[in-house]
Amino acid sequence: METVDLLIRARWIAPVEPDGVVLDHHALAVRDGRIVALLPASEAHARFTADTVHELNSHIVIPGLVNAHTHAAMALMRGLADDLPLMEWLQAHIWPAESRWVGTEFVEDGTQLAMAEMIRGGVTCFNDMYFFPDIAAHAASRAGMRAVLGLIVIDFPTVWAANADEYIAKGLALYDQHKDEALLSFCFAPHAPYTVADEALKRIRTLANELDLPVHMHVHETAHEVEEATARFGMRPLERLAQMGLVGPNLLAVHMTQLNDAEIRHLAEAGAHVVHCPESNLKLASGFCPVQKLLDAGVNVCLGTDGAASNNDLDLLGEMRTAALLAKGVSGNAAALPAATALRMATLNGARALGLGDEIGSLVPGKAADMVAVDLAGLESRPVYHPLSHLVYATSRHQVTDVWVAGKPLLRNGRLTTLDTDAIGAKAEVWQQRLMENA
Amino acid sequence: METVDLLIRARWIAPVEPDGVVLDHHALAVRDGRIVALLPASEAHARFTADTVHELNSHIVIPGLVNAHTHAAMALMRGLADDLPLMEWLQAHIWPAESRWVGTEFVEDGTQLAMAEMIRGGVTCFNDMYFFPDIAAHAASRAGMRAVLGLIVIDFPTVWAANADEYIAKGLALYDQHKDEALLSFCFAPHAPYTVADEALKRIRTLANELDLPVHMHVHETAHEVEEATARFGMRPLERLAQMGLVGPNLLAVHMTQLNDAEIRHLAEAGAHVVHCPESNLKLASGFCPVQKLLDAGVNVCLGTDGAASNNDLDLLGEMRTAALLAKGVSGNAAALPAATALRMATLNGARALGLGDEIGSLVPGKAADMVAVDLAGLESRPVYHPLSHLVYATSRHQVTDVWVAGKPLLRNGRLTTLDTDAIGAKAEVWQQRLMENA
Repeated sequence: METVDLLIRARWIAPVEPDGVVLDHHALAVRDGRIVALLPASEAHARFTADTVHELNSHIVIPGLVNAHTHAAMALMRGLADDLPLMEWLQAHIWPAESRWVGTEFVEDGTQLAMAEMIRGGVTCFNDMYFFPDIAAHAASRAGMRAVLGLIVIDFPTVWAANADEYIAKGLALYDQHKDEALLSFCFAPHAPYTVADEALKRIRTLANELDLPVHMHVHETAHEVEEATARFGMRPLERLAQMGLVGPNLLAVHMTQLNDAEIRHLAEAGAHVVHCPESNLKLASGFCPVQKLLDAGVNVCLGTDGAASNNDLDLLGEMRTAALLAKGVSGNAAALPAATALRMATLNGARALGLGDEIGSLVPGKAADMVAVDLAGLESRPVYHPLSHLVYATSRHQVTDVWVAGKPLLRNGRLTTLDTDAIGAKAEVWQQRLMENA
Repeated sequence: METVDLLIRARWIAPVEPDGVVLDHHALAVRDGRIVALLPASEAHARFTADTVHELNSHIVIPGLVNAHTHAAMALMRGLADDLPLMEWLQAHIWPAESRWVGTEFVEDGTQLAMAEMIRGGVTCFNDMYFFPDIAAHAASRAGMRAVLGLIVIDFPTVWAANADEYIAKGLALYDQHKDEALLSFCFAPHAPYTVADEALKRIRTLANELDLPVHMHVHETAHEVEEATARFGMRPLERLAQMGLVGPNLLAVHMTQLNDAEIRHLAEAGAHVVHCPESNLKLASGFCPVQKLLDAGVNVCLGTDGAASNNDLDLLGEMRTAALLAKGVSGNAAALPAATALRMATLNGARALGLGDEIGSLVPGKAADMVAVDLAGLESRPVYHPLSHLVYATSRHQVTDVWVAGKPLLRNGRLTTLDTDAIGAKAEVWQQRLMENA
C-alpha cells in the first residue's frame, strides 16, 4: 500500500488531457501537492491509504480554472458604472475613481475580494494586470492561491510609478524578490500598444527574452484602437509589435477583436497566445474575437474575465459558457467551440499561455494538484447525458463545492479556508461608501 | 391598522414601474393574492398588521420573471445532444427521441422538472409550446405556477393529434375546460410558418380574434427558413403571415433573427410582440435578433429561454444577462439594452405580450403578488453601487431565495413548497436511463 496525503473519489473526472475524456467513478491520489495517480475508484482503495479521503458522489472534478486576464483589485469597482459608451465609462467614472482611490489599501482589499470570488467559482490561478503588483503578490501568497503578477508598464505617471523606467525597475525588483515562490510567477504587462512607447516596448522585449517571461498586453481591443494606430504609426498595432520582435511564443495578446486572416496566420506561425474575454468585449461593445478561426489556425486561445468593472464578475465557468455560445453565433456554425474545447481553453490553454503548461492545466500524474469539484446533484443539472456539456451550458459557479491549489484545500464544502469572508465583505462595504460619496 | 396576509420588508424593491426605479428599505403588503401597498418599510408597521412578515435585509425583490417562450417538457432532453449543426441535432437526436418517448408520462415528468428549475430561478410564469398541453396545464395548476399553455398546431401527425383540425379541436376543448382558472391562460401555438399551411393559419387567425387569444409562433428563426419560404411562397414568412392578417397585437413572434428595417417598422406599427431567445439563437447559430433596433422602433420585446435541449437551462436571470451583453455587441453600442430594460423585458414586457399586462409584470397595487427575492449578500455581489446592474450583470439564479405566485410561496429559503424535489430528480434519472439506452 502506498501512502498519500489526499484521495478524491468522484462520480466523474475530466482530466482535460486526453481532450474531451470524462472518466466515471475515478479517483485522484495526491502527495506533496502533486497528483500521483488517476485511476478507477475501485482500484484506489487497494493501492493507496490516505490521510484524507473525499467521496464526491455527485460531482465532476476538473483542473483548476485559469483566469488568463484580470485586473483583480477592480473588484471594488464592480458595477460602479454600466451601460455607458466606453470613453464615458473610462473618463467620467473609472479613471477618476482610480486616480482618487487606488493605493496599497485599495489593492490589498480589492485583490482579496477578487480572490475570494474566484476561489468560490473554481479559479485557482489568475493572471493579474494592475498597480501595486507587490501587494497582490503578498495577498495571493497568504491566500495560497496561484497567481501570475503582471509587471505593469504604462507610459504616464501613476501612484505606482512615474515613468516607464521606474515601472520596469519596480517590476524587476518584485520579480527578483519572489521568483522562487512556488505559487507565484510573473510576466511583463505593458498596458497596450497605444499607452507604451517603442523605447519601453523594446526594453521589455529584451528583458522578456532574457528572463523568459511572458508579455501580457491588451492588443486590438477595439476598431478605434486599430484605426488610430494606423493613422499614427502607419501600421496596425500587431504589425508594430511584430516589428519590435514582440509577436512570439511569449506574447499573450488580450481581446483581439480586430483580426484579418493574415494576422490570424501570423499569430499561429509565431506561436503567440490569444486571451479571449467574451463578456468584457460584449459589455463594452468592443467587437467579436474570431475564436473559431483562431482555433482552426492552430492558435492557442485561452479565457479571461477582464476586471469586474467591465464584466461584472470574475466567473470563469460563466465565461466558458459565453465563449462557447458566442463562437457559434459569430461563426454561424452550431458545432463551433464545443464544450470540451471551452473547458480546455479555461484550463490547459491558459496554463500554456502563461508558461505553466507543465505544471497545471490538466489532471495528469506529476502536475500540481490544482483541482475543482462541481456538484451536479441539483435539478438544474438533471438528467446528465454528457457531464462536460452540463459544465459549460447548464452549470453555475455556485455549484463549485471544493477547490484545491497544490493539494491544499482553499474551499471546502463551499467555505473559504484561507480567506475571511466576513472581513472581506466588511471592507468592500467601506470602499462602497467611499466611492459612492465621491461619485 | 389594516390586516394583510403577508408583509415583505426588503433592502431593495425594483417594481419595474416606474421604469428603472429601485426603492431602498421598502415593503410590499399582500392580501388575497394581490399587492395592496408598496411603501417605505418604516411606514409599513404603523399601517399594517400581517399574518406573515418576512425581513429580507440583503435582498432585492422584483416581479416574478416571465419566460415568454419555452418547451417545458424538453427539460428531460437537457444536454442530450450539443455542439451539432441544427439539422443533425434535430434529425439525428431530438426528433427520434421525441417520436420514441413523448407521451403523457414524459410531458408530466418533464414539465415538473422544468417548473422546479424555473421556480428555483425566479420564473413565476411560463409560456409553453409542446405536445399534451392538457398534461402541462394540470401540472402547473397543481404546482401553483402561472402558465400560458400553447394550443399547439403542426401540419403533420404526432402522438398528440393527427392533423390540423384535430390539433385545433383538442386545443379548443382544453381552453374551454380551463379558461376560468386564475393561474392558467392560453394562446394558439402554430409551430412555425414552414410547418403550418395557410388553411390552418387562417382558421387560427379567425379563432384568435374571436377569443382574443395571443398567437405564439417561431418566426424568422434562421436565414435558411426565410430563404426557403421566399423560394416556395415568393415572399418572406412575415409577409405571408401579414397577408393572412396574423401580424397584429396578438402575435408573439419568437426568435426573429432575420429582420430588415421595413419589417421592424411593420412590427412596430402592427403592435406585434417579439420574443428574444438569445442563448438558443447563439447555441444553434441561428443569427442575431436586432433587439436594440426593435426597442428603438417601439416594438415590445420580451425574453424566453426556449427549451432546455437548446440552451441548456431555463434560467431567465441568465437570459437577461446574455440579452443585455449581446445587444451591446450586436449594436456596437455599450449603452444598448441597459440593465433596467433587461429586467423590464423579462417581466412587464413578457406579461404584456401574453395579454397579462394588467395582472402581472410589475409590483404595483392591484396586480397579482408574483414576486421574487434575490439575495445580494454574497461576496460575488459586493460592493453594491447599483442593485439593478448586479441583478443583470453579476447575479446567478442560485441567489434566488423566495418566490411567490399570487401571494402563495412556491419557494421559501431555497426550498420548493409545492413540488417534490426528490421525486422529480428520481424520475429524471429514469428518463435518463431510457433515453441513453435508446441513443
